[in-house]
Amino acid sequence: MRKIITQNRRELLKAALGEIKSDLAVKNTRYLNLFTGEEYPATIFIHQGFVVHVESDDLAAGLENVKDVLDAQGAYILPGLIDAHMHIESSMLTPRNFAEAVIPHGTTTVITDPHEVGNVAGEETVRYMHDAGLDLPMRQWINIPSSVPAVSGLEESGAVFDAEVVDRLAQLQNVIGLAEVMDYKGVEQGTDRTISMIEAAERNGLYIQGHVPNEFGRSLSAYAVGGPTTDHETRTSAEAKNKLRAGLYLDARESSMAKNINAIWAGIKDLPWRDRLAVCTDDREAADLLHEGHMNHVVRCLIQNGMPAIEAIRAGSLHVAEEVGVTNLGAIAPGYVADFLLVHDLAKLEPEQVYFEGKLVAEKGEMVTPIKPKNFAIEKRNTVNIPPLDLEDFQLKAPNGQQNGKVTVNVPTYTDYEDSITLLQKEEHSVKDGLVDISEDPDLAYVITVNRYGKPNKTVGLIRHFGGVEGAVGSTIAHDHHNLMIVYRYPEAAKRVYEALVRCGGGISCSGKDKLLQTLELPVFGLMSNKNCFDTAKEGEAMTETLKGIGLNTMNPLLRIVTLGLTVIPEYKYSDLGLVDVLEGKLIPIFPK
Amino acid sequence: MRKIITQNRRELLKAALGEIKSDLAVKNTRYLNLFTGEEYPATIFIHQGFVVHVESDDLAAGLENVKDVLDAQGAYILPGLIDAHMHIESSMLTPRNFAEAVIPHGTTTVITDPHEVGNVAGEETVRYMHDAGLDLPMRQWINIPSSVPAVSGLEESGAVFDAEVVDRLAQLQNVIGLAEVMDYKGVEQGTDRTISMIEAAERNGLYIQGHVPNEFGRSLSAYAVGGPTTDHETRTSAEAKNKLRAGLYLDARESSMAKNINAIWAGIKDLPWRDRLAVCTDDREAADLLHEGHMNHVVRCLIQNGMPAIEAIRAGSLHVAEEVGVTNLGAIAPGYVADFLLVHDLAKLEPEQVYFEGKLVAEKGEMVTPIKPKNFAIEKRNTVNIPPLDLEDFQLKAPNGQQNGKVTVNVPTYTDYEDSITLLQKEEHSVKDGLVDISEDPDLAYVITVNRYGKPNKTVGLIRHFGGVEGAVGSTIAHDHHNLMIVYRYPEAAKRVYEALVRCGGGISCSGKDKLLQTLELPVFGLMSNKNCFDTAKEGEAMTETLKGIGLNTMNPLLRIVTLGLTVIPEYKYSDLGLVDVLEGKLIPIFPK
Repeated sequence: MRKIITQNRRELLKAALGEIKSDLAVKNTRYLNLFTGEEYPATIFIHQGFVVHVESDDLAAGLENVKDVLDAQGAYILPGLIDAHMHIESSMLTPRNFAEAVIPHGTTTVITDPHEVGNVAGEETVRYMHDAGLDLPMRQWINIPSSVPAVSGLEESGAVFDAEVVDRLAQLQNVIGLAEVMDYKGVEQGTDRTISMIEAAERNGLYIQGHVPNEFGRSLSAYAVGGPTTDHETRTSAEAKNKLRAGLYLDARESSMAKNINAIWAGIKDLPWRDRLAVCTDDREAADLLHEGHMNHVVRCLIQNGMPAIEAIRAGSLHVAEEVGVTNLGAIAPGYVADFLLVHDLAKLEPEQVYFEGKLVAEKGEMVTPIKPKNFAIEKRNTVNIPPLDLEDFQLKAPNGQQNGKVTVNVPTYTDYEDSITLLQKEEHSVKDGLVDISEDPDLAYVITVNRYGKPNKTVGLIRHFGGVEGAVGSTIAHDHHNLMIVYRYPEAAKRVYEALVRCGGGISCSGKDKLLQTLELPVFGLMSNKNCFDTAKEGEAMTETLKGIGLNTMNPLLRIVTLGLTVIPEYKYSDLGLVDVLEGKLIPIFPK
Repeated sequence: MRKIITQNRRELLKAALGEIKSDLAVKNTRYLNLFTGEEYPATIFIHQGFVVHVESDDLAAGLENVKDVLDAQGAYILPGLIDAHMHIESSMLTPRNFAEAVIPHGTTTVITDPHEVGNVAGEETVRYMHDAGLDLPMRQWINIPSSVPAVSGLEESGAVFDAEVVDRLAQLQNVIGLAEVMDYKGVEQGTDRTISMIEAAERNGLYIQGHVPNEFGRSLSAYAVGGPTTDHETRTSAEAKNKLRAGLYLDARESSMAKNINAIWAGIKDLPWRDRLAVCTDDREAADLLHEGHMNHVVRCLIQNGMPAIEAIRAGSLHVAEEVGVTNLGAIAPGYVADFLLVHDLAKLEPEQVYFEGKLVAEKGEMVTPIKPKNFAIEKRNTVNIPPLDLEDFQLKAPNGQQNGKVTVNVPTYTDYEDSITLLQKEEHSVKDGLVDISEDPDLAYVITVNRYGKPNKTVGLIRHFGGVEGAVGSTIAHDHHNLMIVYRYPEAAKRVYEALVRCGGGISCSGKDKLLQTLELPVFGLMSNKNCFDTAKEGEAMTETLKGIGLNTMNPLLRIVTLGLTVIPEYKYSDLGLVDVLEGKLIPIFPK
């Protein structure tokens, strides 16, 4: 059990009893009781950041005995929304710029897993994310990345986390859990690495966050037996129902890439109880934050799908607090932290006002007080450490010096343009002058994955149905190893993209067949911009148009490439070490025998 | 968050995956899913004390790969029941005899508050209760008594617990919370003692168990602000609804004395959600254990009142685990502890079989293997330390040497024979030869409260509507100070009872007008018998008949007297220090000015 402790309980008690003036009373509210499921009018009394009393019998009683009265004018009063699982880095914003972007949408707490920066530059980046999230008008709680690297032996990133790192990081004040244990096969099979990290987290009183896509039956049971108590990787109705049945907290996700709410709701809408349903954003881009919102968008999706609004709101607040074991967050009740929103229209869920710890922090979609910038020396570090590459490094050479004829290639193949699942095809391709030739097949592209942490690892292969790339697109964001990945039809274009990204310290870059078109610079660990949400979103949207210009017409052109290195998402992905068979947990050859 | 950890996670994982034989499979069950509210057939796989898999798709799958198959023959499989709040001492049984009595009824975990023994003999008795509860086929988790004494300054018991005691006892392996903080006015007003103990518990990661009878509005809010997260003192429908609304866990109680389920259900039956309803027994006598059962009786009461059986069972298992912050207890799901019951008739709720940590421990109401006795030297200690008393010590002298005429007396008055609530009446009574005379009013009796911990404190007063006592009844059980209390019409009879109880080291004794009738010996701290449940119940039932014989025709004659010292139950009670005004938290004179 964890609790947000007040420094002065006695003052709160006096305010609760009406013996001293409370800081604030909010009157004329429509109050949703998330414990009983009732809606009724109430007056809420707040003191020193906590709710001290909810008055529903005599709505005017005590109003004379407060320092300030806020008239909600009949608005709903809701607890601040809590994101059960997310990565701030996915917004491409630094923690403080991220805060500025999401608070006006009503998100007052996030459980963030800094495993993108962790993979790039290790333990000290987790400390950086932790410290950058302090003193903000929101709560950024940290889960210790468990997946650095995501899958041991299949990729090399910039760091390796083990049980000792968990023991050390668990001492940080805002660390609350062990982040999504992505190596789900490792959990099920009880590998030393996963079990030792889980045990370290348990002995430090942390909860264990899961990540278990598309597992059923005994495999799912084994994952739960292994220790994790949550999952946010549910994509299908059957998965959703099964995971709730297994007692897992189901963090229904609506990210920029994975839109799972619809299928999840279909799977659980007929269940009598859904007390372990929570919601999360996982990965959400700056442009989506700007146009759609953050947690309010996810909760809205549940409501639009047909879930009663009060239940959807509970999934985005109280249930998350319960999931992570915090006993006085996620509801508006005596003793609870006074994070709350005033909302006139539950279907729209756009807060008129956002209060954090009893103080107004955002109004009508804008911060009331801008967030003070802080400087962190570590943000300036260059993390793109790649030796010089020649044009021929980008070419796919046929094996054994073969110069002509045909060669069989293992080709990961996206099932469609909407999802990140890839299957494998064995294909015959022509060899010309020692190189595999794809010029006749526009559905194919080359992929290079280059270690960017000073190691000589490099993989060149093919990808099918990625989307059109009449030129090249490259990125230093490539979950979860975040090596440099480039998808291209033309090695010259790939080299151009590589050079641009080395120059700026990382980002996303696009080249046409003949010239570089645009580079979105992400110099903070090759993952995050220094700019605010608005500017980052605008650059991202421009880049999206640029990518469409070279033919990339998938659901999310900007992030299409970042799904290609995800060695925890079925079934075949690339890392700097080679072509990864995700389900079997091993490397397989580009050219099968 | 707390978790019951296995010593060998890898073995469980192998069993979950079917790579090794599981210890046990239970087939042909009716499975109640406490997360989703569904009922469906399932086969449950258990290994090394944990559930490793619940199979509901192919019910025969894997049955060949287990060491043992149990055919449930269509019985319901339920999690072992968990008592959210109780005092083992109230059964008058030692922890090991208690275990033997309740396990066959399906109780596999209790959260016990050893504050009766704590009040008698301090910290070492908590360690005794803790150690006596180890190595049993049930779980006896300890909450650290917060109420030693229950209300500081209003009574003197055998010990005083403070924050340092909490810090020390929190180190014990089976300590899980701070027990019911009974001084609810002290919590609301933020007295140093209550706040320092609550803070000690919080810094040790313990949950704070509450006790807040009949509080509403701002007082109830203040209690929640103070720290406790639960309550089991709810007697009325209005209280029940208000406490759930305030976000408290409501531990609905059906004890030997306080039967609250009916009123609670009436107050909450129309609420859409009741996710924080749990159940408890609080104080339950040996005879009731024998004839009615334990937690199965409380859950049955909910069902009989109209709550759907699956929800009532959840209130007696999963909700309790959630309330105390244990993440893998209270349900039958992968990774959860394999405490379970097979029950054919949910309305009767009498388990055919009881399994604890995967092993059969009781069948058809009997233990499968008797519980091994253990000897604890501390059980032999004599805790009745009272200086010699003369007959005149038992007489109620009029104040100021008044010899005749009338005197005004503050007389606590039971509202009825069914409840422990007392109001106050100012009454005029005759004085004869310097003594207050009650001979003409059979509804009145004398009460003496004598400190039994070596202090010279002693109070003599009157009580109205206690029930008939044509003689005397005395007890060294007197919640929560457990001083010697005797209610009597005749001082001679009282002296006889006092002598009997000093002789045997404590218990309950009854005298007629002219001779001692029966003594139920409770030599273990003056609270518990050395005998088993059956013999203790028989002695208790005989004593009940004896008490009826002297005219005590209240709801529970045996325990009528123990409610008279409860300085936390409204409105007027006695302690060794005097007559206590519970609501005002102060002593008032027997003879008002």
